[in-house]
Amino acid sequence: MRHLMSPLDFTVEELDYLLDLANDIEKYPEKYKRACEGKKLATLFYEPSTRTRLSFEAAMMNLGGNVLGFSSAASSSASKGESVSDTIRMISCYADICAMRHPKEGAPVVAASKSSIPVINAGDGGHQHPTQTITDLLTIRSLKGRLSGLTIGLCGDLKFGRTVHSLINALVRYEDITFVLISPEELKIPDYIREDVLIQNNIKFKEVERLEEVMPELDLLYMTRVQRERFFNEEDYVRLKDRYILDAKKMELAREDMLVLHPLPRVNEISVEVDNDTRAAYFRQVQYGVYARMALILILLEISVDA
Amino acid sequence: MRHLMSPLDFTVEELDYLLDLANDIEKYPEKYKRACEGKKLATLFYEPSTRTRLSFEAAMMNLGGNVLGFSSAASSSASKGESVSDTIRMISCYADICAMRHPKEGAPVVAASKSSIPVINAGDGGHQHPTQTITDLLTIRSLKGRLSGLTIGLCGDLKFGRTVHSLINALVRYEDITFVLISPEELKIPDYIREDVLIQNNIKFKEVERLEEVMPELDLLYMTRVQRERFFNEEDYVRLKDRYILDAKKMELAREDMLVLHPLPRVNEISVEVDNDTRAAYFRQVQYGVYARMALILILLEISVDA
Amino acid sequence: MRHLMSPLDFTVEELDYLLDLANDIEKYPEKYKRACEGKKLATLFYEPSTRTRLSFEAAMMNLGGNVLGFSSAASSSASKGESVSDTIRMISCYADICAMRHPKEGAPVVAASKSSIPVINAGDGGHQHPTQTITDLLTIRSLKGRLSGLTIGLCGDLKFGRTVHSLINALVRYEDITFVLISPEELKIPDYIREDVLIQNNIKFKEVERLEEVMPELDLLYMTRVQRERFFNEEDYVRLKDRYILDAKKMELAREDMLVLHPLPRVNEISVEVDNDTRAAYFRQVQYGVYARMALILILLEISVDA
Repeated sequence: MRHLMSPLDFTVEELDYLLDLANDIEKYPEKYKRACEGKKLATLFYEPSTRTRLSFEAAMMNLGGNVLGFSSAASSSASKGESVSDTIRMISCYADICAMRHPKEGAPVVAASKSSIPVINAGDGGHQHPTQTITDLLTIRSLKGRLSGLTIGLCGDLKFGRTVHSLINALVRYEDITFVLISPEELKIPDYIREDVLIQNNIKFKEVERLEEVMPELDLLYMTRVQRERFFNEEDYVRLKDRYILDAKKMELAREDMLVLHPLPRVNEISVEVDNDTRAAYFRQVQYGVYARMALILILLEISVDA
Repeated sequence: MRHLMSPLDFTVEELDYLLDLANDIEKYPEKYKRACEGKKLATLFYEPSTRTRLSFEAAMMNLGGNVLGFSSAASSSASKGESVSDTIRMISCYADICAMRHPKEGAPVVAASKSSIPVINAGDGGHQHPTQTITDLLTIRSLKGRLSGLTIGLCGDLKFGRTVHSLINALVRYEDITFVLISPEELKIPDYIREDVLIQNNIKFKEVERLEEVMPELDLLYMTRVQRERFFNEEDYVRLKDRYILDAKKMELAREDMLVLHPLPRVNEISVEVDNDTRAAYFRQVQYGVYARMALILILLEISVDA
Repeated sequence: MRHLMSPLDFTVEELDYLLDLANDIEKYPEKYKRACEGKKLATLFYEPSTRTRLSFEAAMMNLGGNVLGFSSAASSSASKGESVSDTIRMISCYADICAMRHPKEGAPVVAASKSSIPVINAGDGGHQHPTQTITDLLTIRSLKGRLSGLTIGLCGDLKFGRTVHSLINALVRYEDITFVLISPEELKIPDYIREDVLIQNNIKFKEVERLEEVMPELDLLYMTRVQRERFFNEEDYVRLKDRYILDAKKMELAREDMLVLHPLPRVNEISVEVDNDTRAAYFRQVQYGVYARMALILILLEISVDA
């Protein structure tokens, strides 16, 4: 039995298979609509995340399966002091697979160690959120046609952004990737990414402060939020925040085929005027999230659907 | 693609079609039990409303469809500051139709403008609650056999009662309706209903303070709650509240075929002794609410079921 | 139409039938997977209980049915002051059967009196929790092969423990049962169990303070939590709590075929080192809870499945 704890749990080949399956699901949804009949997904969300929870639920329902679970710790046994280990053993009696979101790093790993059903890490604190990364890879591969030979801009909070770190870790396994890291000085990527991942693997990258100057080079721009609470003082925040807002004017500097991605929810870091730009791919990304999770569920449940 | 924002979105003819369909569903539920197979309804409840939410969920399940969503803002992305526009675009990737309840007037209209799936307004603040109105019309037509030629008593808080305003607006489109408006002075219907709707359309109506005096005239009595917080002072509330409690004694004054309706939940404005009166129709109204929503979902999804 | 309010609602013969059905479900789950197609279970949880709620939901889904409801009073109409009587009449329009958890004793009885669908008491305050008791009986009968001729240890808080009282009441109906009641002085079983149930029925029992001394005699040890707030002073709690923790050392004193049960969730009254002991049956008990509820739903809905 297999779990998904980190995006790197799958080899590049296994990931290729998952992405191929997701694209087949996109193309022939009818083929898969009864694949999980009689199966149940448990969504164990110890902290609310509507987007991720509903994406899993939609995925399971699209496969003909059922869903049960809870959407916040308040409405769960967690409040009675039950351990994650005991909860997962209970859930193993109720469901065939589970997706767990937990505010504490490592909780899904503990769960997986005691579980008799596959556990998917649906986000554990600031640590991992592998289905977001798989969604990002699927979106990029589907819309750009490849995962190699790309110049990828990552913009915003690169210091604390879990999504960005996971994406870098996942993309360095493909050939000829160039990263353009765009952030204020205060929010540059940490050394354990710069040194241990990028430099160690001989990956091309540069770090800049201004989005405008690098727009023309990018095949893809991955936006993230710059949170007010990350700054030491309000002045710095006010001075910097507008620089990292993507608007129509900045989009004029980009290539005609540059894609804009964002893990959502956005607050104001992408102006709504960009939404109608054909290069804005963040809502299509949501749709790919459903296909990616459908493929993942099928793989972990070892269900194959004939052509 | 079509949404439902206000009860007046449908013409009288379209509404007739919907009510006919609802009655067919009531008569032949088996015919419809797979009509929405593979479809998903999203229930986006930014404020709790068990009655309305479960009515929608039961409706979709009766049609063979699935349901996902959230039952309060606390367990949704709303807490992360996401706009309704962005949420609906996400939900458009997860579901085929959605019902939205929101404390702010107009939120469902904003959602509909960005949605790629039909949006049903399931109540927006004190503004509109069209599926309640359609339920009321279905109940009246099913149990009285017609929507014209009726003398309809509306009793309680006629000033702030959203349900009552919507029902008046919907019923003035039928012929020969007489309204008897029963309320304390403080809670009479506002001018924009009295002047702009009733007088403007030459509708017969009268306004009275005492329920007893008009009971014998009524074909139908629509009760609503008189909320304590609507009164300027406690004395007035205490003095008036009992007058608007419907009990067995007041029911003795009514015709044998007079129906009592109430949007529910009631607190104490209808005495429980009335529940066993065959003229009490407020629980049958709940059941009609499910049929009305089933018909609505089918129409908005453009699904037709052969005889 | 029949409800389940107390474990004693069923005669011993009816209970035998239910347990036989549950064992058939365990053995041939495929036979039952469409038994409740088109049926809906409402889970009305006025206080959270993930374990019980999800067990009911899994049970209904395993039977091919659908589930709707709420998981806490906060997200329900209860906050608008609606009575349980009105709520159940609403729910009767939405579902075919319901499971109700309520903090107030007797709430499910009130609901059942007004309901037009079967109501299952899923726990009402410190009063009854009949599906837990049925689960316990099913677990014992399935794993020990009988419900008579057993020496059963009940350990922990025997004064306030609803589960323990219900289990005693249920087991005295079988032949040749011996109870060994293990608790601190402060938490001994109350007189209305000792006098009115045990002595009245000539049941063999003894009351002891130390778990070790009786371990070798037991066919079954039912553990419960000793809650800190039950003690008058902290000293007594600290002094006593460890005595009632089941660990590997104490398990060495037990017979090779002694079973350990626990209604869960546990906090620390069973050491995790016991989990791997083949005699630990508390997680299998969770699984039996699903089968028990499946059988119960079928019986209350009067659905029979051919062989």
